Amino acid sequence: MIKVVCKVKLKPGVKIEEYLIMAREVISETRKEKGCITYTLNEDSHDPTILTMLEEWVDEEALNEHNKSEHVIKIVPELKKLRESTEINIYREVE
Amino acid sequence: MIKVVCKVKLKPGVKIEEYLIMAREVISETRKEKGCITYTLNEDSHDPTILTMLEEWVDEEALNEHNKSEHVIKIVPELKKLRESTEINIYREVE
Repeated sequence: MIKVVCKVKLKPGVKIEEYLIMAREVISETRKEKGCITYTLNEDSHDPTILTMLEEWVDEEALNEHNKSEHVIKIVPELKKLRESTEINIYREVE
Repeated sequence: MIKVVCKVKLKPGVKIEEYLIMAREVISETRKEKGCITYTLNEDSHDPTILTMLEEWVDEEALNEHNKSEHVIKIVPELKKLRESTEINIYREVE
């Protein structure tokens, strides 16, 4: 299993709901992917402009397939336009 | 439920095993806490000096209790000495 933490900061003035409308489509399609274990969007409790996707995938191949999926290729570039920054880390559990 | 992402960068020269020896004690004690749902330590697959704790707690009170626990008060200051930086975010799941 691998895990992904994708931490996003929205641009000033971007409404969270505007971001969520598009993100929801990615989320619902991603959860149908064979190699997806969990895929949730989480809002920072102190700063609502920080949104973090917490993901679990069966293996790296499943993540690579996800990154080539139609919903990612179609929607993620639109989401990126609303972001000030994106920080992605891929992890393996050690303990 | 609340989630915590605690992302740590180790100081140059610090051996991961040195950090893990102490971290394991915090982890095993924390998992015994009543309000702890999950508590795992994860290593960045591209940079082994980045270690991230992914945590789920039943509520904020459980997290506050954890932060006052003996194992946190005793061991976390020692872990901090080995860290270059610590980034903590608390989240609520929105999707």
